Amino acid sequence: MSEIANPKRIRLVRRSPAYWRVTFDHPPLNIFGPETIPQLNEIITALETDENVKVIVFDSAVEGFFLMHYDFLAKLEDTTNLPPGPTGLPQLPDMLVRLSRAPVVSIVSIRGRATGVGSELALASDMRFASRERAILSQWEVGAGLVPGGGPMARLPRLMGRGRALEVLLSADDIRGDLAELYGYVNRALPDSELDEFVDALAVRIASFDKQAIAETKHLVNIASLPPDTDIAPEWEACMASIVRPAAQARLKTLMERGFHKPGDVENRLGYHVGQLGSGPL
Amino acid sequence: MSEIANPKRIRLVRRSPAYWRVTFDHPPLNIFGPETIPQLNEIITALETDENVKVIVFDSAVEGFFLMHYDFLAKLEDTTNLPPGPTGLPQLPDMLVRLSRAPVVSIVSIRGRATGVGSELALASDMRFASRERAILSQWEVGAGLVPGGGPMARLPRLMGRGRALEVLLSADDIRGDLAELYGYVNRALPDSELDEFVDALAVRIASFDKQAIAETKHLVNIASLPPDTDIAPEWEACMASIVRPAAQARLKTLMERGFHKPGDVENRLGYHVGQLGSGPL
Amino acid sequence: MSEIANPKRIRLVRRSPAYWRVTFDHPPLNIFGPETIPQLNEIITALETDENVKVIVFDSAVEGFFLMHYDFLAKLEDTTNLPPGPTGLPQLPDMLVRLSRAPVVSIVSIRGRATGVGSELALASDMRFASRERAILSQWEVGAGLVPGGGPMARLPRLMGRGRALEVLLSADDIRGDLAELYGYVNRALPDSELDEFVDALAVRIASFDKQAIAETKHLVNIASLPPDTDIAPEWEACMASIVRPAAQARLKTLMERGFHKPGDVENRLGYHVGQLGSGPL
Repeated sequence: MSEIANPKRIRLVRRSPAYWRVTFDHPPLNIFGPETIPQLNEIITALETDENVKVIVFDSAVEGFFLMHYDFLAKLEDTTNLPPGPTGLPQLPDMLVRLSRAPVVSIVSIRGRATGVGSELALASDMRFASRERAILSQWEVGAGLVPGGGPMARLPRLMGRGRALEVLLSADDIRGDLAELYGYVNRALPDSELDEFVDALAVRIASFDKQAIAETKHLVNIASLPPDTDIAPEWEACMASIVRPAAQARLKTLMERGFHKPGDVENRLGYHVGQLGSGPL
Repeated sequence: MSEIANPKRIRLVRRSPAYWRVTFDHPPLNIFGPETIPQLNEIITALETDENVKVIVFDSAVEGFFLMHYDFLAKLEDTTNLPPGPTGLPQLPDMLVRLSRAPVVSIVSIRGRATGVGSELALASDMRFASRERAILSQWEVGAGLVPGGGPMARLPRLMGRGRALEVLLSADDIRGDLAELYGYVNRALPDSELDEFVDALAVRIASFDKQAIAETKHLVNIASLPPDTDIAPEWEACMASIVRPAAQARLKTLMERGFHKPGDVENRLGYHVGQLGSGPL
Repeated sequence: MSEIANPKRIRLVRRSPAYWRVTFDHPPLNIFGPETIPQLNEIITALETDENVKVIVFDSAVEGFFLMHYDFLAKLEDTTNLPPGPTGLPQLPDMLVRLSRAPVVSIVSIRGRATGVGSELALASDMRFASRERAILSQWEVGAGLVPGGGPMARLPRLMGRGRALEVLLSADDIRGDLAELYGYVNRALPDSELDEFVDALAVRIASFDKQAIAETKHLVNIASLPPDTDIAPEWEACMASIVRPAAQARLKTLMERGFHKPGDVENRLGYHVGQLGSGPL
C-alpha cells in the first residue's frame, strides 16, 4: 500500500495495484475548497496514467458527511485565478469530466451528506451506491440564490429524466436514500450495514477483470451517455456569475449567521434551512 | 389576487406575485378544444413576460378529470385554421414548447384522468406529481387509430426510456399512479390525502428562491433535456393526417356511439374501451 | 398458422395475420451462433415486408434459458465471413437495428436467462417483460475479457441512465427480475404465473389497433430514442477484436474447462463464474 497527496484531506490507498480507495477526510464537514483541488487533481491524473488501476472507490472518513459544498470562506480569487485544466475547462469541472472519461471504473459509496461538489463528484463517477438510512444527496445551490457549477444540469437529466432532475435542482432539497434510488440519483440504496461489503465485493470483482475490456466498454458507453464539454462550461460560468449577485450574497450571509460552515443544524439540514431564507430583501 | 382569461374553462389565480395557480374547470370532462387554446395561450404568454412569477401549479376543479383529450365534436378547421404560434409551430404544440422553456417552474398536480392533451401538458411541464389512488395518465390515441400530436413521442422516451415510452404509446392504455411513478411518467405518486399539501409546500418553497437562479438553472437543464422543435413539428402533422383516415374515423364513430365525449364508462375507462374496438372494418 | 425457417432453432408461429410469435427452441441452452443468423434474418425480413403483422412476441421453449451468448465453439470465420446486412452493419447488429426500426411492435417475454445475444435482442426489441422469479438478464462479456458487440453500450444508457448501464456492463453480473425492473432493464417484472397471460393480452390488444397508427407513432419514438448506426458499428468491431486477445482466450479456456457451453453450474450461474477467473495469467 502507498499514499499520495495530502493525507489530511483526501487519502489515496492502493488496496492492490488494480483497486484503489480514495477517502475524503477533512473534518468536521468535508467541505471542498480551492486548496483541495490539487489533491484531487493528482488522483485523477494518476487514474488517467497508471497502467494497472482498474477501479477506484470514493468514500468518507467523516461521520455524517460524504463530501460537501464549496468553501465560501475561501477567497473567490483562489478559485477563479486557477489556470484551466487539460480539457480547457476550469479546474473543478475539468477534473470531473476527466474522471468520467478515465479508463477506470469509479464508484462512490455515499454515507452521510453529498451536497454540492459532493453530489457533483458522485454524478461524474461511473456508479453511485448509497446508505439507505444515512445518505443524503442534494444540489442546494438554487436555494441560496446560486446556479450549480459542476455539471449537474447536464448530468442529472441524463440519469433520471428532465422532470426529476428539475425537482432535484429547483427544489434544492435533501434527497434521502430511498428517493435517490427511485429517481436513479444512485444506482441502489443499500442497508447501511451492507453498503461497505457490497461496494468492496463489486470493486474486487471488477479489479479481477481485464483492464482493456473495461476501458473499451466504458469508452463506448461514454459515447452514448456523456454530455459534451460544451454543455459543462456554461454551468461553471453561470455559477461564478451567480455568487457575486446580491440575491446570493444576502442568502449566504444569512446562512452564515445561522451556522453555515460550522457543525450544527444548518449543515445537517441544509435543505430545510435554504427554504427558510425568504424571498424578500434579506 | 386577480384573474385573467375566461374563468369558465381555465382559471388563473395569483396566490402571490411569485406563485400562480391554474385550474382546469371545464365540466363535466375537462375536454380541451380549439376554444380553450387562447385561454391557455394568454397564461403561457404571461409566464414568459411577467417579472415576478417563479412557479405555476396546474390542477383541476373537475372531479375525476385533470385534463382530457382534444374535442372531437369541434370542427377540425377550427384547429387547423389557427395561425402558427410564436415558435412557428401550430398553436397547441407551440404553447407546450413555450411552457417547457418559460423561465418559470411549472408543476402539474394530477388527480383524475390526464389523457391526450392532459398527458401532453403534464409532459411539457417541469414536474409532475400524481394522486396514487386517483390519477390516471394515458396516451389513448393509437387505440383510436390516431397518432398523438402534442409531443409525447419526443418527450416520453427522454423521461422513461424507449421501452416504457413505447408501451405507454402503443398499448394506449391507462397508467395508474404506482406504475406512473415506477416508469417516471410522474416524479412521484403521493397518497391522495397528501398531494395538495405536498405540491403547495413545494411551490411556496420555490417561490421563495431567486428568480434569476431558477431561470438560469432551468435554462441549462433545457439544453440537456428538451427535444428540438424540429422533432415536435412532425408529430402534429402526423396527428392531423391520422384524424381524417378511415381507420380513425371508424374507431371514433364507434367510440361516440358508445358514449365518448359524455360522462360515463367510455371516458372513465378509456383504456379499456379503445381495446374493444376490434381490428377489422368497423 | 404457418411456419418459416428451421423449426429446430427459431420457430415462427402466426397466431393471426397481425400477431406473430417467435420461440427460441435450441436446447439445451439456446446458444446463438452463426447458423442461427439466417433463421432470425428471415423473420426480421418478414417483419419489414409483411403487410399485416402488427406485433411479434419472442419467447423460449427451453427451460431456464431465454436466449444465450454467442457460440464460442463455432469457428470465428463462420461469423466474420458473413456479408454485411442491408444496413451495411455486420449481420448480427444489422438484424438488431432492423428489428428496432421495423414498423411492428416487438415484445420479449423473458423467462430464464437472457445473456449476451439474449440481452441484446431484448434491448433491440420495443418492450421487455420478465418473470420476476425466473428471469436473469446479463451482459457477461467483460467478465470474460470481451467487449459486448450487439449494441448494449449504445442502448443500455438510453434505457436506464449511464450509472446503471455501466454497472450492468462492467459488473458483468446476473440481474434478476426485481432489479431489472428497478433499473428499467425491463418494462416490468411480473409474477411468473402472470407473465404469459399479460404479454398475450398486450399483444392481442396491439394487434387490434391500426397498423399505420402503430408504425407512424413508433417511427416518431425512434427519432427520439434510437442510437445512430454509427454508434453500433464500433461495438461489433471492438467485440471481434477482443475475442482474439490473450486475456479473453485464457478466460474462455478456463470457463470451457469448468463447463461453459454445457448444461450445468457455469451456464446457470454465469455471473458468479466470470467472477472466479482471477486477474492474473490464467
